[in-house]
Amino acid sequence: MPGTGTTMQLVTELQTILAEERVTANDTLLAQHSSDESYHTAHLPDIVVFPETAEEIRAVINCADAYDVPVTPYGYGSSLEASVIPQQGGIVVDFANMDKILNVRENDFLVTVQPGVTRSQLEKELKKYGLFFPVDPGADATLGGMAATNASGTTSVKYGIMRDNVRDLEVVTADGSIIHTGNLAAKSSSGYHLNGLFVGSEGTLGCFSELTLQVTGIPEHILAGRAEFTSVDDAVNAVIAIMQSGIPVARVELVDEEAITQMNLYSETDYPEVPTLFLELHGNEAGLQQDVQFMENIVTDMNCRQVEFETDTAGRNKLWEARHNAAYAFIHNHPGRKQMVTDVCVPISELAGAIKDARTAISDSGLPGGIVGHVGDGNYHILLMLNPDDPDAIERADMLNERIVSYALERGGTCTGEHGVGTGKRKYQEREHGEALRVMRSIKQALDPHDRLNPGKVIE
Amino acid sequence: MPGTGTTMQLVTELQTILAEERVTANDTLLAQHSSDESYHTAHLPDIVVFPETAEEIRAVINCADAYDVPVTPYGYGSSLEASVIPQQGGIVVDFANMDKILNVRENDFLVTVQPGVTRSQLEKELKKYGLFFPVDPGADATLGGMAATNASGTTSVKYGIMRDNVRDLEVVTADGSIIHTGNLAAKSSSGYHLNGLFVGSEGTLGCFSELTLQVTGIPEHILAGRAEFTSVDDAVNAVIAIMQSGIPVARVELVDEEAITQMNLYSETDYPEVPTLFLELHGNEAGLQQDVQFMENIVTDMNCRQVEFETDTAGRNKLWEARHNAAYAFIHNHPGRKQMVTDVCVPISELAGAIKDARTAISDSGLPGGIVGHVGDGNYHILLMLNPDDPDAIERADMLNERIVSYALERGGTCTGEHGVGTGKRKYQEREHGEALRVMRSIKQALDPHDRLNPGKVIE
Repeated sequence: MPGTGTTMQLVTELQTILAEERVTANDTLLAQHSSDESYHTAHLPDIVVFPETAEEIRAVINCADAYDVPVTPYGYGSSLEASVIPQQGGIVVDFANMDKILNVRENDFLVTVQPGVTRSQLEKELKKYGLFFPVDPGADATLGGMAATNASGTTSVKYGIMRDNVRDLEVVTADGSIIHTGNLAAKSSSGYHLNGLFVGSEGTLGCFSELTLQVTGIPEHILAGRAEFTSVDDAVNAVIAIMQSGIPVARVELVDEEAITQMNLYSETDYPEVPTLFLELHGNEAGLQQDVQFMENIVTDMNCRQVEFETDTAGRNKLWEARHNAAYAFIHNHPGRKQMVTDVCVPISELAGAIKDARTAISDSGLPGGIVGHVGDGNYHILLMLNPDDPDAIERADMLNERIVSYALERGGTCTGEHGVGTGKRKYQEREHGEALRVMRSIKQALDPHDRLNPGKVIE
Repeated sequence: MPGTGTTMQLVTELQTILAEERVTANDTLLAQHSSDESYHTAHLPDIVVFPETAEEIRAVINCADAYDVPVTPYGYGSSLEASVIPQQGGIVVDFANMDKILNVRENDFLVTVQPGVTRSQLEKELKKYGLFFPVDPGADATLGGMAATNASGTTSVKYGIMRDNVRDLEVVTADGSIIHTGNLAAKSSSGYHLNGLFVGSEGTLGCFSELTLQVTGIPEHILAGRAEFTSVDDAVNAVIAIMQSGIPVARVELVDEEAITQMNLYSETDYPEVPTLFLELHGNEAGLQQDVQFMENIVTDMNCRQVEFETDTAGRNKLWEARHNAAYAFIHNHPGRKQMVTDVCVPISELAGAIKDARTAISDSGLPGGIVGHVGDGNYHILLMLNPDDPDAIERADMLNERIVSYALERGGTCTGEHGVGTGKRKYQEREHGEALRVMRSIKQALDPHDRLNPGKVIE
């Protein structure tokens, strides 16, 4: 962290390059860029900048080099693992001013956006073309942030994750180069796969200045519904059976009874407070009817007490809004507490055991919490509410996380299915990746030798 | 290249580590490992080894280090861009003895194989479980080779490319580490995406010793057929319309009239010698019927003269066998000539122009040739036959390739959709990747500082 004098000098220098109003050391703005949506400890940056072009980002990185301060990219701040917290101070690069949708190549199912464009902003624009962007993490995150953490969500079981849907990135690297990691073709075997490497690198290898994303036609027919069970075991077994049947579900979400309760309170729904699967199917009309019938047979075999399909768009939207707000429901209903969210992903054959263990873990922790998850992918979250000033609660939450992660890693899973590493999952990297972590370190060292970009995240 | 004395010393040393019969400098075996299936110039290795474990591969790399000779991995030899040709001599690592299917995790849709397992061998085994591996490059390549070049093929329009279907790789790196690049979970945001980086690295970053692949259930219903057109333009416009309609085609292949002629000669089919689309749809029965009807309407609008669906498995198999043998048909029907295959991929909106230009390019070259391609992805091949001893023919083929690649790159495409870079596409890397090529070089330098692994391929 630079001294105050140096900071003011750096502010002045940055202001001559960007513009006075787009470089700030204002206390309120520093505080706004000191935390994310999680329980992780906040840390103030020294300066926040709002660049508008790749060249300005490059100039910021060059300045940071000259003053030897770190650079941390910041999108919407919805990170859950401290990915955006500037834990060593320095400059936060906020992409709020880079929020243009640059180009919709309708016939190629491609859209080029600046990194600060939010998911809902993109959705609104694409709708005009009968298109949608099929990565839906729930939060109204920026596309840059979603690419940085390799986000996914409810629809990934059918449409893939961010990494599958990024066709090209414009990236400003630590040495100030402005590179393109991909191209506009649907596939390529040319050169090393930089797209995949930069997606999920959480700002540690470069700042994204432009993203070209693959989009999808809005399906001809959509059917959404809820399948209610008496036990979580039955619900999970139904998911496994659905996945193994080959029915191309577009969404299959588990919401346990506690999460339904919180959801009903917050979203003013009146769903029966039992373990429930939220389901969605996309396709042509005839195919969908046949899939639904097949799926109803499967869930009935798994002791489903009732399946209810939403017949109109309003009902469907309400259902998914409630599901998306599940995490916020817990937060809203537990004032003064912060949320700790686990994020493991296991092979589907291990899902039943994992969820069983997760429920015991919640109960052992003595903290209020529930389970929601993208269970078609084997990814689920424990939403645990804790008092951030209570060290005992934090310790119990950490113990729970440790237990959940160990369970997943011992069974070939991952410590983070979609939230990223940040600092929250850093301690599990060695255990998960073993010797491969050294390869990751070599790459970081090669591309950012002075550890300028988001230092301390992902790789220590 | 080491002297003969040193080579014999190295052979002896390797024989004590592996086994006498699995290390050879036998002339016939050296010759067999000097070329691929393309027109690229052959080059003899000094030694060929047949390891059986990751530890043996590590020992081979350590020996190569001690003697300062390069190591080139070799699968089935079906490369088309010299990826497996040991152009600087040294040791070729042939994976023929690493041909075991290690584990089928039926319920997780995962299979773990050694790198020398061939596509047809895997297909046969998976069939027992009602599963299939959905990357189908035509050649009966090894899975290790397919991952090394990021192969794809006829079904990638629906099921993705190798990179999409590799869940984990065990890799022996240049420093002798044995790492895992992924895990068994369906998705992960943990650490840098080494899976994606190593897939497509063509043996320049490590030797694969094990692959865990995502497999798929054999579809409930499959319908394959041919749509015949009077002009290539109409056929291409039909493809574009099909893709833009959102019909989830599983295969959509263009075969031009020249390719159909060669195919009929070689495969004893009697398909009308007109521009044709080979199509396939996967799904449930009702959905498929509706898709077929929709597709028939689309192709009819595009002046399709006839659509013929195969009603039984035998007819379907014959159709795809003929399509797969298209390249071999040209080779068989032009004795003494070698084949040069282009491999660009363009955004689908550029496909019609690209194919038009490709047809002019063939005619301008004065060489016999035709077009086939995975046109749903915007990927197509010119199959050009040339006399490898005729410098003029080689020059004309190179000029054609240059023209085709330039056309694609100027329109946001790639110089290689699925064959890889090897040395054949190396000269286009700077033009395609620009400054990003420096980033790729840094990665190669960081992971293989002595340029031990397949030197000269992908990155110069």
